[in-house]
This record gives sequence, structure tokens and C-alpha cells, in this order.
Amino acid sequence: MRKRVGVGIAGYGTVGRGAAEILTSHAAALAERAGIALEVAAVCRRRALPADEVPPGARCFQDWRALVACPQVGIVVETIGGTGDAGEVVRAALEAGKPVVTANKNLLAMHGDELFALAAERRLPMGFEAAVAGGVPVVRAITSAAAGDEILAVQGILNGTANYILGRMESAGLDFSAALAEAQHAGYAEADPTLDLNGVDARDKLAILARLAFGAGLDTGAIATVGIAGIGAVDVHYARKLGGVIRLLGSAERGAAGVHLSVRPWWVPQQSLLGRVQGVNNAVVLTGRRIGRQMFYGPGAGGGATGAAVVADLVDVAAAFAAGRLGGSTPPGFGSGPRLPLAPPPAAPWYLRLTVADHPGLLARAAGELAHQGINIDSVVQEPGMDKQRLSFVITTEPAAEAAVEAAEAAMNAHGDLLEPVLRLRMAEEQA
Amino acid sequence: MRKRVGVGIAGYGTVGRGAAEILTSHAAALAERAGIALEVAAVCRRRALPADEVPPGARCFQDWRALVACPQVGIVVETIGGTGDAGEVVRAALEAGKPVVTANKNLLAMHGDELFALAAERRLPMGFEAAVAGGVPVVRAITSAAAGDEILAVQGILNGTANYILGRMESAGLDFSAALAEAQHAGYAEADPTLDLNGVDARDKLAILARLAFGAGLDTGAIATVGIAGIGAVDVHYARKLGGVIRLLGSAERGAAGVHLSVRPWWVPQQSLLGRVQGVNNAVVLTGRRIGRQMFYGPGAGGGATGAAVVADLVDVAAAFAAGRLGGSTPPGFGSGPRLPLAPPPAAPWYLRLTVADHPGLLARAAGELAHQGINIDSVVQEPGMDKQRLSFVITTEPAAEAAVEAAEAAMNAHGDLLEPVLRLRMAEEQA
Repeated sequence: MRKRVGVGIAGYGTVGRGAAEILTSHAAALAERAGIALEVAAVCRRRALPADEVPPGARCFQDWRALVACPQVGIVVETIGGTGDAGEVVRAALEAGKPVVTANKNLLAMHGDELFALAAERRLPMGFEAAVAGGVPVVRAITSAAAGDEILAVQGILNGTANYILGRMESAGLDFSAALAEAQHAGYAEADPTLDLNGVDARDKLAILARLAFGAGLDTGAIATVGIAGIGAVDVHYARKLGGVIRLLGSAERGAAGVHLSVRPWWVPQQSLLGRVQGVNNAVVLTGRRIGRQMFYGPGAGGGATGAAVVADLVDVAAAFAAGRLGGSTPPGFGSGPRLPLAPPPAAPWYLRLTVADHPGLLARAAGELAHQGINIDSVVQEPGMDKQRLSFVITTEPAAEAAVEAAEAAMNAHGDLLEPVLRLRMAEEQA
Repeated sequence: MRKRVGVGIAGYGTVGRGAAEILTSHAAALAERAGIALEVAAVCRRRALPADEVPPGARCFQDWRALVACPQVGIVVETIGGTGDAGEVVRAALEAGKPVVTANKNLLAMHGDELFALAAERRLPMGFEAAVAGGVPVVRAITSAAAGDEILAVQGILNGTANYILGRMESAGLDFSAALAEAQHAGYAEADPTLDLNGVDARDKLAILARLAFGAGLDTGAIATVGIAGIGAVDVHYARKLGGVIRLLGSAERGAAGVHLSVRPWWVPQQSLLGRVQGVNNAVVLTGRRIGRQMFYGPGAGGGATGAAVVADLVDVAAAFAAGRLGGSTPPGFGSGPRLPLAPPPAAPWYLRLTVADHPGLLARAAGELAHQGINIDSVVQEPGMDKQRLSFVITTEPAAEAAVEAAEAAMNAHGDLLEPVLRLRMAEEQA
């Protein structure tokens, strides 16, 4: 008979249930892969769980301390989310000598250094594939690519909700709030979608990927982060006239002076790898000096996909268990090592959308501010026949430093001509 | 000072040199990741190597036995290719207690069971990410996905040379031999491109991926394999008229009766994930019950990309070395375990191209053979104004069993009406 290891799942929501369902229904095949039988020994949720929702044979706790202490629990899965209880669960599990699998991007982005150092000190593995891009194994892929090559850039669509909303604005001509309402109705956006829309969810994932790719630490809070709430139907329209679409991208790019990190909306060509990603999918494009451009694509969230990633990590941890080898090592970029030197983005073309009540001289004044910063205009796009009282036009620039564009933008905003602040998109130069 | 491990590279061609270049130029970062310094201790090639092509500090042998026996060599990299010397090198290295990294798809597809069993018996790891899809980490991705989910299908473009040729036939209107000559001129096809064109290279890669995905062994030689040599400019033309493109796909699909395995040319919709893959790139689409559809995409070959995959494996092996844990386990699907039950493909629509000297009744006879097998015709496409002495037309069918289509095709070929045998493509039903 095989050895067994009990799994304790702290936080029994969509992902926790997804993992439990796989562990229960897929048990024999998992035991074959791991060389050890994985069983759900306990679950824990703050509110009591109806008896028929507890996995067969498992205990159910309301206090996570009881789950971590439970002698039947050999590995702890953390799917609570956030940095409060979740962090305490992970610390307590490691201190109790139990390996951890977590799906918590926010916790790792904010406290990964400390938690991975603790895991290494206790010689315990900590799996975290599920923390980024659901079931798409980008953590393994980037770790592997960075081991054999020098990574130049990691760029991707890291939030499926935002991508769904942008896609519906494109395909159905909806405005932002109608697309959001539809996403909520379809179950693709939560009741409080703040972290999806303001870019913070994508920022946390980018922070993890950038650490793995470049092998150095960083301050997650210092990543420039702009969400999609300012994008209007008019921008989707103008983006298409320019041959492209709008995507919320997390981008980490290595340059001579350091690494640029940002989350912001981009204009990308319609036929580019990232421009073709539709719906709630995630996609990560990895550029390496030798490996060229690779893309990893798939559903970015959902209990099934993310639960599967949790289980894949459990199999790795359990296989190490079964072989009698634990000994966690800190993943590249986490711990007390060097920090990434941050740098501004490379010179890039920019899309600037100005919304005005039309009167003579407006374009001249905007163009003057750009000229004052030494920025060349590439094109001006204005749809004929718009309402003169609320007219939007777009200026695209030749490649320019962000600081110069910001200065020109600040000057335009200060004019008093504008009905709302300039909406700015970075434009991809190549087939990003 | 860090521990060091010497790497011996057997077979010093494009991939071996690529790996040596990375190990030399990227040494400090690699040592950081692996926790151990990796040095090229020796290389070996049958023909003598000019002194200035030997990596600094390395020995150069012409006999692989001397490389395996060299006391400075702790890990053996096999980049010889084929199943002759390559197999002997791998066996001898494992028997000498040295871990192995190989980029050899053909060796693993043919002798993987035996070699992985030997590695497990000696408790030695054997890395093989570089054997499939160059630098794209599909081995890790599929292993991870299969650990957490039930895989339904693995389908992909596994040969970059064939994809380049099909792409040039599409974009430049070349016929097959002109596109092949161009690929050879551009360095994308070898002087003897047989294994790229007849599907055997893709078949070997598919055999490895199918084992990992479904966790069972198989007979590589039993995989139905059709190459691209029969594809004409006329097929590329008709494929486009039907809204698609032609791709050489390896496909492993799980059905109720077993797994269907084949390499053959497909018609796929132009806008599908695989239809959009251009040039020498590889792409693998993985479908799982819970993870949905994922795609992994990137350059499929080349010394840089494949060398980077070899080095990523070396870092894994060396990290295990440094941590004092070796203990190889057999990858899922390799060894003496169960074999995959093979099954015919699911019912699918088919593209049949007939080339005839036109005379009345030809279409009626072909249609009659399909009707005789109970197969419904979906469309008939014939370009107007073709040469009546050599006229090609296409019949597409509704979904039908392959055996029935084969019977109808055999009957058509037997008529004596055809100037060449029927050219058949499987058609993708969804956005494959």
C-alpha cells in the first residue's frame, strides 16, 4: 500500500473547492504521478460549511490554527487570498514543518521575500504556480527559460476580467460601464472589481514574474500602475482606426539602465500575438536573447484551471515527500538578494486622446506643447461629424521618452481647454 | 567558493555549441541559479576540432568513451542525435553514475523506456526538455498540466521546417519544391530534409508528448504518419478558398476507446490558434478537462533556443547535485508501465482533392463512392477555367469515420480516372 499524505485546504472558495474536487475524483492517477496518495484531510472556512459540502473523510474547521495543527494534515494549501490571515496561515504552516502550496499572488508580491526565506530556512518547499495565470504554467516556463537564457522582456495580459471588458467594448461596441456590467452578469467580474480594473491584480502577478525572470527582488508598490477605467468607447474606435486594439499589459523590460516595470493600457497591432488574445484568457510573451519570442496562453482564472495548478504543485511537493527529499530552495528573485534597478520605459510611440469643446487653435496648442518637449507627431486622427461640444481627437507621437510626454500632457491638462484629462496609451512598435 | 561540476558535451554541432556558448558567457548567473558552478570540462566530436573552437579550459576528445570516462566530467550532455552512438553514450554515462541531459527526440521516442528505467535504477536524473520544441518548455508544461488535470488532447505544429515550407507556399504562392529549395537556402532545412518532410521528426516528438500527457507507453512506430510532400500549390489555394490554411499537425486525442495518435497535414481555419502560427515556429495546444485550452508557442529549433533548453536542464540537474539529492524518477509514460490503447480518430470532416483529365461523370463516380460508404458531401470546390487535361477539384465531407473515407478513397484510386492518388487532409471542426 502506498504512503499517504493529508492535505489541509485553508480558504474553501472557488479555487480550494476546485483543488479538492480534483484530489477526490482524480485520486488514483495522482497517486501514480506523485508516488504517494494525496487525500483531503481537512478544510477550513470562517463560516461553517454544510456537511454535504465537506469532502468525504475530511474534517472541517472554522479556525485556521486548528487546520494547521491537525496531525492528519501534512501539506497546507492556502487559498484564502489577501495578506492577513493568509500570511499567518503560511507562516504557521512552515513553522510547524509543513510544506505549503499557495495561489495567493498578493501575498507573494508583498511578502514573498520573507515567506520564501522562512521556507528555505525550514528546508520546506512552497509551490506557487497557481498564483499567476491560473492553470497556465508560466511560473515553471519562466523559471526554466531564465535558467538557460538572458531574459530581455516579460509582457502579458495578466488580468482576464480586464481583457474580457476590453474585448466586449471592441466586439459589441459597449462603453466601459456596460461592458463591466456584462462581465459581472457573466460571472467574469466580482461584485467589487476594483483590483481587476485598477491594475493592482496584474501588478502583483507582474511582480512575481519579473522576480523570476530577472533573478532579483523589487518593491511591488513601486510599479507604475494604471488601470482601464479611463478607456472610452471612443478610444476603442480610434485604436481600431489605427489598426490595433487596446490591451491592459504588465510589462517588464530590461534596458541598459535597469528594468522598466509597469501595468498600463497599451495600443497593440490587431494581428500581434497579444492583440489576438480574446476573452478571459491570459497570455505571457517572453523574449530571451537566445530563445527568441515565446508565448504561453490559456484561461487565466476559474476554479478548475487554478485548482489544477494547485494540484500540480501538490504533486511536486508530495513526490519530494515520497522520495524523502524536501529541502526548499528560494526561487530566483525572492529572499534577501539584490534588488532590480528600476528604469523608465524605453522611448516609445504614444497615443494621446484629447476631449474638448471645439474652438479654433486647440490642436495648435496641443501640438505646441509636444514641440516644446521635442516630440514629433506621427499622426492626428479625428472622426468627422462629431458633436462640436464634446469632441475627441487623437495624436500619436513618434518614439519619445515618457518623461517628455508626461510634461507635455501636464501642460495640456493645465490649459483648461480639455473636458477631461488626456488619456494616454503606450503604443507597441513591433508585433508585441 | 562554490562547488563545481564539469559538463561533458558529446556531439559538438549546433546545439552542443549553443549550450557551450551559454555555459561560458552566462556562467555567473547560472551558478547563482543552480547553486553550483557549471563548467564545460570536455567536448567530443568524431572529426577533430580546431583548437580555437574548443571552449576555454575544456578537453577535446574524438572518442565518446573517453569523454564519458573523463574524471572531470560530472554530467554528460548528449547532442549527437540518432539512436546509434547517442544511445551508447547515454547508457555508458548512466552506468558510470553520471546524470544525463539529452536533446535527442529520436532516441527517447525509440528507446526511452529502457533508458529512463536505467536512469531510475541508478537513481540519476535525465533531462530532456530540449528534445521537443527547442526552447519552448512544453515538456515541463505538459508534465505539470497532466499532474493536475485529465488531458483530453495534445495537438501541435512540431516541425518548424515543414511549417516554414507550408507558410511560403501560402504567402509567396510557391510550389512545394520551390519552397523547399528556399528553406534550404535560408538554412531552415537540412541538405537531407527527409525526416522533416515525411513527418517522422514530428512523430518522435508527438510520441514523447503523448506519453507525458497520458501517462502510458506506446509504440512510436505504430503512429500513423503522413508528411507534406504530396501537398500542391493547388491545395494551398483550395484551402484558402475554404477559409483556412494547411498545417502539419501531430495529434494525440483521448476518446472512449483509446487514444488516437497521428501526424498528418490538416486543414485548419485561418483564424485558429494553430492557423496563425507562421514560419519556423512550433506551437502546442493542450486541452484539459479543467484547464481548458492552453497554447505554448515559440521557435522550435536552432542552436540558441535548443541550447538554452539544454542549459535549463543542466541547471535543474546541477541544483539537485548541489543539494545532495539525486534519485531520478521515471517520467510519466516511460518505463515498463501500461501501454496506451490506440484508437482510430474521431469522426471528422475530410478534404479530398482529385486530379483528373476532365470528362463527363467523374464527379458523379467520386460522389457515388462516398455515398456507398454512407458519407455526406459538405461542399465541392472547383476553380473555373482550369486546364481540362489536368483539373483538380476538392470534395469536403461531413464528419465521417476515417475507415469509411479510406475505403471510398481506395475505390476512387482504383477507377483509373485519376492522374494521381487522392490527396486527403483532415479538417479541424473547431478553432483548433
